[in-house]
Amino acid sequence: MKLTILGCYAATPRTLTNPTSQVLEIRNQMFLIDCGEGTQVQLRKHKIKFSKINHIFISHLHGDHFFGLPGLISTFRLLGRDKELHVYGPKGIKEAITLLLKLGDSWTNYPLYFHELTSKSSEIVYENDKLSVKTIPLSHRVYTNGFLFKEKLGERKLNIDSVSEYGINKAYFQNIKNGKDVVLDNGETIANSLLSFDPPKSKSYAFCSDTAYKPDIIPIISGVDMLYHESTFLESEVHLAEKTKHATARQAAQIAKDANIGTLVLGHYSTRYKSISLFKEEAKDIFKNVELADDGKTFEF
Amino acid sequence: MKLTILGCYAATPRTLTNPTSQVLEIRNQMFLIDCGEGTQVQLRKHKIKFSKINHIFISHLHGDHFFGLPGLISTFRLLGRDKELHVYGPKGIKEAITLLLKLGDSWTNYPLYFHELTSKSSEIVYENDKLSVKTIPLSHRVYTNGFLFKEKLGERKLNIDSVSEYGINKAYFQNIKNGKDVVLDNGETIANSLLSFDPPKSKSYAFCSDTAYKPDIIPIISGVDMLYHESTFLESEVHLAEKTKHATARQAAQIAKDANIGTLVLGHYSTRYKSISLFKEEAKDIFKNVELADDGKTFEF
Repeated sequence: MKLTILGCYAATPRTLTNPTSQVLEIRNQMFLIDCGEGTQVQLRKHKIKFSKINHIFISHLHGDHFFGLPGLISTFRLLGRDKELHVYGPKGIKEAITLLLKLGDSWTNYPLYFHELTSKSSEIVYENDKLSVKTIPLSHRVYTNGFLFKEKLGERKLNIDSVSEYGINKAYFQNIKNGKDVVLDNGETIANSLLSFDPPKSKSYAFCSDTAYKPDIIPIISGVDMLYHESTFLESEVHLAEKTKHATARQAAQIAKDANIGTLVLGHYSTRYKSISLFKEEAKDIFKNVELADDGKTFEF
Repeated sequence: MKLTILGCYAATPRTLTNPTSQVLEIRNQMFLIDCGEGTQVQLRKHKIKFSKINHIFISHLHGDHFFGLPGLISTFRLLGRDKELHVYGPKGIKEAITLLLKLGDSWTNYPLYFHELTSKSSEIVYENDKLSVKTIPLSHRVYTNGFLFKEKLGERKLNIDSVSEYGINKAYFQNIKNGKDVVLDNGETIANSLLSFDPPKSKSYAFCSDTAYKPDIIPIISGVDMLYHESTFLESEVHLAEKTKHATARQAAQIAKDANIGTLVLGHYSTRYKSISLFKEEAKDIFKNVELADDGKTFEF
């Protein structure tokens, strides 16, 4: 998986900082997560092909997470797109985008599907043979979901030496990869575990923004390789975090620790702080593997 | 008047080019004209104080002319604005902005007034003691208005020498400035023209984008000091201009010539052309005083 941060600052776009948007690449598929104002310019800047984006996931309907979406959808049209585009986001997103297109008398020339989310429980919203995307219900001022991207386990790997030792015919290989035991001509059953190795561990990524400190999400994100968790504030402003339903760097780290995840990526910084390194310092006291998101930064895992 | 071009390229925002938006400063008042995606970042970049903007004029509801408006309105809230904001634009703009704010449960903390336009005739939409703003009905794929900003004539200037020669009392000065004659104690009437000079010529600016070639606008913009007229295409693509209801550089120059205006500023360039200087070359054959808009450029007149 490769994560590209297009924008990771709270609230207002500025000359050098962008509101939330990121692209997750999994096995050559691109997923856009959130789409603050200016996202299409950030996509160009980081040379991400517009045509590779077929699925867009919107966490919630605050401007800094979706005001770039109408423009991006319009630009897809101008670029002559014909492939389907699927947008997943809170109920209301369809009405908003449809109204904006209608006012401009500018409908898409490609199929545009909205998948409106209303559930307060975690649910799978997208799935193909390689991965699934599940919502992570968050706690913010409006209905908000994070998203869990999880690769599916691939096939088991043949143990070539063992298979040849048992003299097993090629015709059985696919069954072995699928986890089945083999019954030899003499009636003997060879356990699958003797003939194959576990598939490579599947990777997973959890995006959690915006949210108050919410330990309920721990079972959903438990053990993910990478967690992006918002840290709008430092603990010194925890009263503001509580008031605005955001989290502090310390709270993000506590979630990372309790969910036993791999690497924590912090983001959604308030621009009130002089340096984003303060967020890392605070989080490191609780959880070791902390990285700072920044516009244009990529993470491969 | 001082015009700052925040963006003047057609269609899609790119890394180095912005969609339509400009700021007109008249006697220390700022007027924002159109608001493509990224306008708030452009305002910051060019150090224009957000608090000075109280009136926004939107020509039409295509994304490249108003998708930056919801974000700007939200940012005003985040900055703690309390002054009124007035938005002038086609019918539908209120519903669109209101829906977006409603979805985010983020109402403004300042009074926001929409002035929805529907008339197909030129009309005054804003007026104070220093200037008026009048619509210029344009011809585009959706309902579109340009805007004519016209300073009001100031008071006449006292002819100090003449006033003192006639021995006129100070009490009459305001009447003289207002254009009135003076009757002396001996019954003699002194014509105002002997006691005062004409006020300085009032300046005017016309913004015309987006539009097909439309000679109907000539009487409305006749004699303006500066005309911004779109030139999406060159004459070699006049068939595209006709099809999409845009104008060519040559057509813009023809309008400028026929309306006997001061300076023509071209803009709203299609990004298909290698150099915007081609637009100037084409227009110069018809009309001499041609300038090219470009993002960040300012014009004082």
